Amino acid sequence: MSERYYEDYAVGEVISGHPVTVTESAIIDFAFKYDPQPFHLSLPGGEASSYGGLIASGWQTVAVSFRMLAQAGLVGAASLGSFGVDQLRWHRPVRPGDSLFATATVREMRISASKPDRGHVTIDYSTRNQRGEEVLSMSSVQIVRRRDQTVAV
Amino acid sequence: MSERYYEDYAVGEVISGHPVTVTESAIIDFAFKYDPQPFHLSLPGGEASSYGGLIASGWQTVAVSFRMLAQAGLVGAASLGSFGVDQLRWHRPVRPGDSLFATATVREMRISASKPDRGHVTIDYSTRNQRGEEVLSMSSVQIVRRRDQTVAV
Repeated sequence: MSERYYEDYAVGEVISGHPVTVTESAIIDFAFKYDPQPFHLSLPGGEASSYGGLIASGWQTVAVSFRMLAQAGLVGAASLGSFGVDQLRWHRPVRPGDSLFATATVREMRISASKPDRGHVTIDYSTRNQRGEEVLSMSSVQIVRRRDQTVAV
Repeated sequence: MSERYYEDYAVGEVISGHPVTVTESAIIDFAFKYDPQPFHLSLPGGEASSYGGLIASGWQTVAVSFRMLAQAGLVGAASLGSFGVDQLRWHRPVRPGDSLFATATVREMRISASKPDRGHVTIDYSTRNQRGEEVLSMSSVQIVRRRDQTVAV
């Protein structure tokens, strides 16, 4: 994992993950642990729902997207975490066998006024399936250390 | 799992999960799979960070909170999913051994104008640790079938 200081981001930069296929077994495992709703847990539960079949938990779509972007270098050792997320939207269901492709676009950057050893990087996330349809979007502010600055704890 | 139709919610109702202790091993397992940042992955990585120790991925805090609330009956078989989440905030780090206690409060309810077989339930989530400190908050609109109404697919 690289350091990825604040200075290593640029407004307009796009980070792309590798695609990942979401399997039936991964959907059911995640649901059983974190989101036990009928249409995430079983084939009959999915078929009986308005989705007409098993679909992935929205939290799984978020977690898988974030993982693929982290792996692609979105955040590095200079990351100080995030305040949170805004406008998280699940646009379409994710079904077994769908391949998800996540991108992150740097929308805005500014140095922290109260703690000038770090900056805030606003990132827009988008995840699409193998047909190019958007399944997820959200935006988030990442807190990142500046290069050659001592971090105030 | 009960049905939990739209009519089974009430504005002001509070649903409480059972507490769950987030262990060191659960933090590292989740991070390795979904959020491989140094301060989520290892004790030295946590110690070297501004957090001064290992902390849980914010996505793990969300997933564990949602699971405990689903188990407490927040959503039932009449759930049709959710559009998304707003104002997700991680207020404080979650550390190994912390016990999380999640609550969901029904803030607003309205019948869908375009699809009167369902309603939208706006829910405010809050998760606290064993000292009563808030670690997570967010709000979300849940889509729920009305009782004795045919669902338009």
